[in-house]
Amino acid sequence: MDPVMSRRSIREYKDHPVSDEMVHTLLKAAMVAPSAGDERPWHFVVINDRQVKAQIPGIHRFAPMAPNAPVALLVCGDENLQKHKGFWVQDCAAATENILIEAQQQGLGAVWLGVYPVEGRVQAFRQLLDIPEHVIPFALVLVGHPAEHKKPADRYDDSRVHTNGWNVSRSASSDELLAHQPGNGKAAPVGTRQGRTHQAGCEQ
Amino acid sequence: MDPVMSRRSIREYKDHPVSDEMVHTLLKAAMVAPSAGDERPWHFVVINDRQVKAQIPGIHRFAPMAPNAPVALLVCGDENLQKHKGFWVQDCAAATENILIEAQQQGLGAVWLGVYPVEGRVQAFRQLLDIPEHVIPFALVLVGHPAEHKKPADRYDDSRVHTNGWNVSRSASSDELLAHQPGNGKAAPVGTRQGRTHQAGCEQ
Repeated sequence: MDPVMSRRSIREYKDHPVSDEMVHTLLKAAMVAPSAGDERPWHFVVINDRQVKAQIPGIHRFAPMAPNAPVALLVCGDENLQKHKGFWVQDCAAATENILIEAQQQGLGAVWLGVYPVEGRVQAFRQLLDIPEHVIPFALVLVGHPAEHKKPADRYDDSRVHTNGWNVSRSASSDELLAHQPGNGKAAPVGTRQGRTHQAGCEQ
Repeated sequence: MDPVMSRRSIREYKDHPVSDEMVHTLLKAAMVAPSAGDERPWHFVVINDRQVKAQIPGIHRFAPMAPNAPVALLVCGDENLQKHKGFWVQDCAAATENILIEAQQQGLGAVWLGVYPVEGRVQAFRQLLDIPEHVIPFALVLVGHPAEHKKPADRYDDSRVHTNGWNVSRSASSDELLAHQPGNGKAAPVGTRQGRTHQAGCEQ
């Protein structure tokens, strides 16, 4: 089982608790994520209180199912923990994605609900959970034992792949590159340059 | 093998190519990442041209080993593809993390080198690869067959975990919460509220 390829967003959960050990494993996965200069600018709020969960749909319109999830994890960024200014968002996103993939690895189901940079959601979660001002609620992950089953998705899109330059087809030979022919599988965006001479030195 | 838990940043590579099929698998993993409203605001530049790779150390000070990597993937964000304003960074970070974990799953080694929001790096990669103005070079991932081996890391830090509120210890009983005692394993940050009455309803 490849947990990256098989992961899907799971929004329906069995009425069955997620053990503390499982939650610990998910948090361990989150914290092993890479971060800029290993700065680890994150905090996590584990939400398993029925009354707290009940308030989530009122502050996040894509979270009507939050009360049905045995546990929710609020990933937060702490600007004071940054060594590299401006990197906390991607660090926290890597940690969040690790939670999702680890959930899949453990047979759990999870979904990522965006919080930051929607200011209303940020403020509402901060108020709900007494989060200090320098800490930014970033994303909410609902976790449970899956009550829906989805086949792996294939979202591969060749038009998003470029090789050694924006207008260079993956399959283009050096001759094609030098001849600067369109119609080799990539449309040529207006206003960009083509035909870089170093393409002739392609290794593969 | 748990590819989330075992993944490490690999900066030394064997002199052995990464097959096109492997690169395709990594890109497929990247594009199966979740994104805000499934907006998929990403592009990928596969860099395997020796002359292009040779220019990377000059534009990214943490990439002296780029010429030794058989392939580098530049993950880019396209602001024009966003449905939800401001989410492209976290979407691209999830895609980037998927590449790293899938590389581990496939027995490859990879490292994430931050590009955005360091403006000098963004501009230098844009120029090097003819990337249009509305597309933002986000992160560079070097990939190869690992020539260094690292044990799994454990970066779990209990002080970053909060339960149902910022100042609530994971192990606190309802009585402790109502009594509002410090010294239960969490320091109390100045200026935040404590003793939320709904904590008494903890499920676990």
